Amino acid sequence: MALLGIEIGGTKVVLCVGSGSGEPRESVRRAMAPTGSWRRDLDRLIEDAGQLLVRAGVDRPRAIGVSAPGPCDAASGIVSHPPNLPGWDEVPIVRALEAAFDGPVHLENDANAAARAEWRFGAGRGVRDLAYLTMATGVGGGMILDGRLTRGAFGGAGEIGHVPIGADGPECACGRTGCLEALCGGNAWQRHLQQATPEASEVWRRAGAREAIRPEHLVAAAHAGDAFACAEMARWTEHLGRGLAALILITEPARVVLGTIAVAAGEALCFGPLRDQLERVLWPHQKGRVEIVPALLGTEMPQYAGLAVALGDAAAWPPADAAPERP
Amino acid sequence: MALLGIEIGGTKVVLCVGSGSGEPRESVRRAMAPTGSWRRDLDRLIEDAGQLLVRAGVDRPRAIGVSAPGPCDAASGIVSHPPNLPGWDEVPIVRALEAAFDGPVHLENDANAAARAEWRFGAGRGVRDLAYLTMATGVGGGMILDGRLTRGAFGGAGEIGHVPIGADGPECACGRTGCLEALCGGNAWQRHLQQATPEASEVWRRAGAREAIRPEHLVAAAHAGDAFACAEMARWTEHLGRGLAALILITEPARVVLGTIAVAAGEALCFGPLRDQLERVLWPHQKGRVEIVPALLGTEMPQYAGLAVALGDAAAWPPADAAPERP
Repeated sequence: MALLGIEIGGTKVVLCVGSGSGEPRESVRRAMAPTGSWRRDLDRLIEDAGQLLVRAGVDRPRAIGVSAPGPCDAASGIVSHPPNLPGWDEVPIVRALEAAFDGPVHLENDANAAARAEWRFGAGRGVRDLAYLTMATGVGGGMILDGRLTRGAFGGAGEIGHVPIGADGPECACGRTGCLEALCGGNAWQRHLQQATPEASEVWRRAGAREAIRPEHLVAAAHAGDAFACAEMARWTEHLGRGLAALILITEPARVVLGTIAVAAGEALCFGPLRDQLERVLWPHQKGRVEIVPALLGTEMPQYAGLAVALGDAAAWPPADAAPERP
Repeated sequence: MALLGIEIGGTKVVLCVGSGSGEPRESVRRAMAPTGSWRRDLDRLIEDAGQLLVRAGVDRPRAIGVSAPGPCDAASGIVSHPPNLPGWDEVPIVRALEAAFDGPVHLENDANAAARAEWRFGAGRGVRDLAYLTMATGVGGGMILDGRLTRGAFGGAGEIGHVPIGADGPECACGRTGCLEALCGGNAWQRHLQQATPEASEVWRRAGAREAIRPEHLVAAAHAGDAFACAEMARWTEHLGRGLAALILITEPARVVLGTIAVAAGEALCFGPLRDQLERVLWPHQKGRVEIVPALLGTEMPQYAGLAVALGDAAAWPPADAAPERP
């Protein structure tokens, strides 16, 4: 039986029909243009999903998974006024899709959905304890512990972006100081780079103008050996390492998957230095065992995120009977 | 059917027979005097357990739970050379007890066992997501997430004591700097107090001599309003709050249970200020919901720890059918 995955972003929607094990078979991607009425937006989504199912020859999906911008509540199935979806206030998306397609619907915020996707289809395959972090704008992520997504008591676990990693750090968008996100998040880092980059640097040359400087210019200039860029990159990686140390010492995943900026920075600028740093702070029994690896799905993520949510924990990977024995 | 709980400490052993739901019925406590041979120590333990079972009229316990000093591995059932049990190198305690009593045996390190005990019998009753921290010597703890003890991929989750809370903190016994334990652990704090306490202070007067100063003198002097003691206590609580912020933002427990020094410091010196501090760093949806409470078991802990390990996750509390619905 087929699955249906839906990824709702601030600028686009991706719908994807997948096999029972979640392999994508047919997908459609369109711009998300919120009308200001969530009912109208939801009707359009249901219509699109219906058409895709017909085209894929699927009568009734076994399960539907929805990845949506937070805040959204997996337990109640409600999306609550995400900043980038105007008009989406307390949207009962799970109930609406269940009524339309007569099957179970699961909802997850985009960070948890992406963690599920890397776990099932990407760099997290094969482990039962996984942490996933991405730093495109803020620092978001999700955790799978002992084969289950960990949501916390009130749906807010995994907020690694707001772990304090230094009392004297810059102010964060959340109002606190010293958050990992205020040092390593894409938006915060971009603001810092636009202020700190010297005119003579390779970063500036690549960007063309101060206000055009973005993290990718810094990463590219660091790959090219620019001294300012290398120093900034090393500082970024060191801050990230401090956040990861807290995450690993508290939850001890077998693998940590890092997306976006970390993937672009690669082995030489990010993963190598991170491993060296963590070797100094992890316990002896963790050294060389807790893996730090780049995310794999990249631009394919939207196709997989909804399907991974549809799969949920139930069909655990690796299958329960193949898993190492645990007490 | 009855349960048998065994708590092995560096200086004492407590054995306890409990009802099927874990209520203690009969217990025995004796000094732990390691002979240097773990086989001999284990034979003595098995003999004591056998006698207690006979006295309690229990033919064969339904399950046996063992709390032992770390490092010990719940999955393999082996205790590996804990520093305070000389001669205990790679001790297959689970296999030995299973052979002796013909029933399932579960092993947990003392921090995880104490977390289980507070969850089942103490201040953690009734929640599915719990963090437990104690600061008697170091800072240890355990986490129950979604109704299950979280051990991490390699048995080392919950090491909140070594989360870095400030790059410029004192050196920790583990070799790192800035660990929570190096600032808030009983041993580290005692060393600091012995150096920092002025002779004129109430702390010194209560202790009698510099080298006799212990955290309890500081706590008592702070309760009495001594200025130095109050300032030190506030500093201790503030450091603890930074560690708790990381723990809560990453795992989001419904309740955090704090033992030892925190219990002695109480509402005015610890829990009140901690809640105020956390109000400033938690998410709006967590404020007033994540509870910070004192541990309840105190000196009764050894009786309950082994029994709580025997109960495990299986008989989840609250019972699964009474639990709030979760996706």
